[in-house]
Amino acid sequence: MPRTGRRPGTTDTRERIVAVARGLFGERGLDGVSVRAVASEAGVDPALVHHYFGTKQRLFVAAMELPFDVQRMIPILLTGPPEETGLRLAQIFLSIWEDPVTRAPLLGILRSAVTDPGAAEMVREFVLTHIVGPIVAALGTSDPDLRVTLIGSQVIGLALGRYILKIEPLASVSRETIVAALAPTLQRYLMDPLDLP
Amino acid sequence: MPRTGRRPGTTDTRERIVAVARGLFGERGLDGVSVRAVASEAGVDPALVHHYFGTKQRLFVAAMELPFDVQRMIPILLTGPPEETGLRLAQIFLSIWEDPVTRAPLLGILRSAVTDPGAAEMVREFVLTHIVGPIVAALGTSDPDLRVTLIGSQVIGLALGRYILKIEPLASVSRETIVAALAPTLQRYLMDPLDLP
Repeated sequence: MPRTGRRPGTTDTRERIVAVARGLFGERGLDGVSVRAVASEAGVDPALVHHYFGTKQRLFVAAMELPFDVQRMIPILLTGPPEETGLRLAQIFLSIWEDPVTRAPLLGILRSAVTDPGAAEMVREFVLTHIVGPIVAALGTSDPDLRVTLIGSQVIGLALGRYILKIEPLASVSRETIVAALAPTLQRYLMDPLDLP
Repeated sequence: MPRTGRRPGTTDTRERIVAVARGLFGERGLDGVSVRAVASEAGVDPALVHHYFGTKQRLFVAAMELPFDVQRMIPILLTGPPEETGLRLAQIFLSIWEDPVTRAPLLGILRSAVTDPGAAEMVREFVLTHIVGPIVAALGTSDPDLRVTLIGSQVIGLALGRYILKIEPLASVSRETIVAALAPTLQRYLMDPLDLP
């Protein structure tokens, strides 16, 4: 008898599997999680996970759906004084990274991508299509692709130092301190001349 | 009969084990390498590895010895126009990261620290004592600890994007382009007012 009255095969079940997978990938990365473990924690048969997602890699991609909408970030970024665009971007990033609910899947993606070339390839595709693409399209500056990846390098490095390596004082200073420290860096990467050779 | 005339227990053998371990940790991270695998590739008995290093974690620490000397970087950093300190630091970092020989152990450290809390703890200790400490001592600015960890966040994020995730165009632009893009960021983190709240 189904525990909650749900029938296997409903959208509900699929979403439950994705939610469980997101949590487990977040804690252990792609390599540290088996389809069996996800099925067990979701209370379904492993065959059902395979039915929905085929492979663990495709389950990972489904779980990787970002818990925020990049398209909705763009107008926020572009509204207000241009010289405070970096500040607004820093605030948006920190609002995502400081919330444990949205941070967990991002940390899972990061952990997996660092250790698994297949996951790195998926993350690369995903970042380019869903994050770099829309932001580049919204920017009117030279070298938009390079700018967005420079921003990515600073934000990912911050996440690594603050939430994974927990290096002090980076790990325990206030969110406002991080925003203030990062805003001019992001502003320069977004809009200032890069003076490239 | 020993293959090379070396006797087990010589400094030579110990260094060979460390070199092999550095290579394997660099490719696969702490979790992906066994003492047995290191011993096998070094052509020694696993018991000898345990004799020298005790545990895999201590072997990791030995292999983690950075392939450059932070103390020697300090005078280079402090010699020349102060407003070009960020540029010199960017050049030093890139000279280390662009050389496959010095890059390999750093990537190994990074991969291990991201996925293994024990390795993260060791890296944290190591970074604080051997990198942050000397640089902080050489800086005469406010918030030196925060400044050094901000620099670390940018440099680690760059390494992740360029050498591990290989996100374009960050992965394939010239070393000089990266130096030019990073120098003002590092300069600000090193010396400019941070305007913290």
